[in-house]
Amino acid sequence: MIRVTIWNEFRDEKVEAEAAELYPDGMHPVLASIFAGDERFSVRTATLDEPEAGLGGSVLDETDVLLWWGHKHHDEVPDELARRVQSRVLEGMGLIALHSAHFSKPFKLLMGTHCSLRWRRIGERERVWNLAPSHPITAGIGDYFELDASEMYGERFDIPEPDQTIFISWFAGGEVFRSGCAWQRGNGRVFYFSPGDQAYPIYYDETVRRVILNASEWCAARVRIPFAVPNIKDPIEPVT
Amino acid sequence: MIRVTIWNEFRDEKVEAEAAELYPDGMHPVLASIFAGDERFSVRTATLDEPEAGLGGSVLDETDVLLWWGHKHHDEVPDELARRVQSRVLEGMGLIALHSAHFSKPFKLLMGTHCSLRWRRIGERERVWNLAPSHPITAGIGDYFELDASEMYGERFDIPEPDQTIFISWFAGGEVFRSGCAWQRGNGRVFYFSPGDQAYPIYYDETVRRVILNASEWCAARVRIPFAVPNIKDPIEPVT
Amino acid sequence: MIRVTIWNEFRDEKVEAEAAELYPDGMHPVLASIFAGDERFSVRTATLDEPEAGLGGSVLDETDVLLWWGHKHHDEVPDELARRVQSRVLEGMGLIALHSAHFSKPFKLLMGTHCSLRWRRIGERERVWNLAPSHPITAGIGDYFELDASEMYGERFDIPEPDQTIFISWFAGGEVFRSGCAWQRGNGRVFYFSPGDQAYPIYYDETVRRVILNASEWCAARVRIPFAVPNIKDPIEPVT
Amino acid sequence: MIRVTIWNEFRDEKVEAEAAELYPDGMHPVLASIFAGDERFSVRTATLDEPEAGLGGSVLDETDVLLWWGHKHHDEVPDELARRVQSRVLEGMGLIALHSAHFSKPFKLLMGTHCSLRWRRIGERERVWNLAPSHPITAGIGDYFELDASEMYGERFDIPEPDQTIFISWFAGGEVFRSGCAWQRGNGRVFYFSPGDQAYPIYYDETVRRVILNASEWCAARVRIPFAVPNIKDPIEPVT
Repeated sequence: MIRVTIWNEFRDEKVEAEAAELYPDGMHPVLASIFAGDERFSVRTATLDEPEAGLGGSVLDETDVLLWWGHKHHDEVPDELARRVQSRVLEGMGLIALHSAHFSKPFKLLMGTHCSLRWRRIGERERVWNLAPSHPITAGIGDYFELDASEMYGERFDIPEPDQTIFISWFAGGEVFRSGCAWQRGNGRVFYFSPGDQAYPIYYDETVRRVILNASEWCAARVRIPFAVPNIKDPIEPVT
Repeated sequence: MIRVTIWNEFRDEKVEAEAAELYPDGMHPVLASIFAGDERFSVRTATLDEPEAGLGGSVLDETDVLLWWGHKHHDEVPDELARRVQSRVLEGMGLIALHSAHFSKPFKLLMGTHCSLRWRRIGERERVWNLAPSHPITAGIGDYFELDASEMYGERFDIPEPDQTIFISWFAGGEVFRSGCAWQRGNGRVFYFSPGDQAYPIYYDETVRRVILNASEWCAARVRIPFAVPNIKDPIEPVT
Repeated sequence: MIRVTIWNEFRDEKVEAEAAELYPDGMHPVLASIFAGDERFSVRTATLDEPEAGLGGSVLDETDVLLWWGHKHHDEVPDELARRVQSRVLEGMGLIALHSAHFSKPFKLLMGTHCSLRWRRIGERERVWNLAPSHPITAGIGDYFELDASEMYGERFDIPEPDQTIFISWFAGGEVFRSGCAWQRGNGRVFYFSPGDQAYPIYYDETVRRVILNASEWCAARVRIPFAVPNIKDPIEPVT
Repeated sequence: MIRVTIWNEFRDEKVEAEAAELYPDGMHPVLASIFAGDERFSVRTATLDEPEAGLGGSVLDETDVLLWWGHKHHDEVPDELARRVQSRVLEGMGLIALHSAHFSKPFKLLMGTHCSLRWRRIGERERVWNLAPSHPITAGIGDYFELDASEMYGERFDIPEPDQTIFISWFAGGEVFRSGCAWQRGNGRVFYFSPGDQAYPIYYDETVRRVILNASEWCAARVRIPFAVPNIKDPIEPVT
């Protein structure tokens, strides 16, 4: 059983009209519904305004893959929590950073770069090209899929070269973007997936949901290896 | 002219007998002597106990490549300074992290991982194998070089997969280590080079010095591109 | 059910005394016994002296992962067969190249490099370090494992930078070697694993067998995507 | 002095009207003119219909970087010549594969993959995005450049994950393409750059010419390391 935790900033849905209409209870229940009825997964959600941002106690310990959606309030996530998420990934947990989580603290800590990009929000068409048809994340996805109205995120995206570039998006307005990127970090896997602005019904799109489901399985922790810096006083081989 | 800044924690040399004997004025002047008489470089040094750790004012702005040696007092480097170093690398500056700087704040920020490893300090033989004989960093280096007495750093070294593994070390006591690793991060280049414990005369070794000289040229900033997140309100192409 | 085909040159075992003693029926049945009783796999073997080197007809079509052991007679593998293996990997089949298969035609075709290395056969100790404790290939393997007598393969190994370096070996005689390397090529996965000279009982070693079992599951084809170069005469978007 | 050899199939210019008009003496003199007056380079050209395809005798030995343009007659390049080019790259020579050279024998040998792609030739607009503003290949290139009429090459491009993705192109008709890709292979560097169909004046474009000039400097051989498989009979360290 893969234990999924969906973390949502859950502010835009309270103050932006389109977001409120599309996601009246927040994006997190809609994301949770991706896993509904799938016995491979158990799902919980957490939001910024809960105590300890919903990630206190043993929540991270009991999480195999963490989905993260944040936007305008990244700064309110405590540094200490962000570092705990980072360490948990390095021990083995998977992280799926969604859309504007490119600027979230945990993702930036894991990447080590600015994660900056170009952007435009006019609801233009995005076509997401599948570069990795044999990767588990793209199972059931064809050559490409389209989103009629999407926020543009464009290159140059300041990230470390991905271990594998899974998707590259074409935007009607003229830009391109590495919209699906996979990295190993420590003992954990990280997947960034850019579709998902709060003003468009992107998390209702069947293909987007399929990608998130696939990625959750792919990222899920298979080990938990704690931080250690062993001092091996006695050499294995005799040192003369 | 490549502007080199050599940052040294400069504490071990004051309190450890072997370090004091080998490096009576600190490791930084010995490292600086690598560049002596080479007209391609200008060199300055900075140490932890100077005001602002020697990196205040415009020092970082005027640095093309930063060498970093730190050991037991990483925590005394202010977080804000570590983030400034990180940002400066992302803008284009090179960083050469030496030996125990695997645990320095700037290096860890750029890697995003724990950078943990195995270690042992009994002065065993290290043989450094050259995996990249066409790389600028190994110019003039043969198949391998040896250090008669070295601190063992061993795998698993918790780093992102290097863009290129330059050196792998063999240790008499039975371990191996990726002792020279190169990464692009943002617009800057990062090189980690593990030989260099304070208790051994490693920074007097001609081959080690050659590697550091080569790496300084290879890492040196060729651009300076500031952080930006442009909102491109008008699409390049007409969006219908 | 993962369909495994084990290809063995099967000549050394007929003419070299140690090989004949260790592997009286060839290495292929010993490799096949790794999968015995494991219901996830079905196994067949093929050898050089069979018609079409045992890989005629639909054998490759019916193979999800191909293990390859060859040594002194790589040149007798027909070029056309090597290209068929390469294409089958690019369509999705996994390939595990064992030991001296670093010089086999299919592996060299997939790497594009010389795959040259240093070597020595005096039966020295090899210690295989695990760099990827969360990778499926190392499930159940600890920090390292040892082989009392092994052929030395040493760096520089002329391969493309691996997608992930899984193992690095230490040799008593002073060398190091990237002994486990993983690459994605086309739609297939390639794993190179160096332990395995015919003169030592390496394929009886429980840890080596575990690695091969794990790798076979990891490499197994999940798709079959034929070669295509589509001419898309009508653009998706209107071109003005 | 960097010794550049420009290899051109030089058939399309003899039989296709647009190509003949744009490149009356072939593409190779137009490519050669990129280096005119630049004292860092010496340039020679070679074409398919010359004896030994213009690459006999010591030509490859005297080449630091080879540019390759081929299209419909890849098969007429002898296998033996293609393997000599491959080996020369592995020894240290640079290779710049231009446009339809994605299907050339030397490039395919070095990649190990099918190098297949989608394509369409209707003269649509291509916008080439610069993902690597600090890379030597993009010196002097801005965020992007445009080609008014270009042949579309689209993903999925079947190549090994590049060491660094330098350019990604946007096409008016809806596709994207990794149009500039860099790899290390053996001791040599390989750069693939897709702009350049014979029917459009692309090799007259100042930005395209700048990229080719930059890449020629970046790729140029700095070493020549012959193939070797040394048998190190005596271990470096005593083996007990």
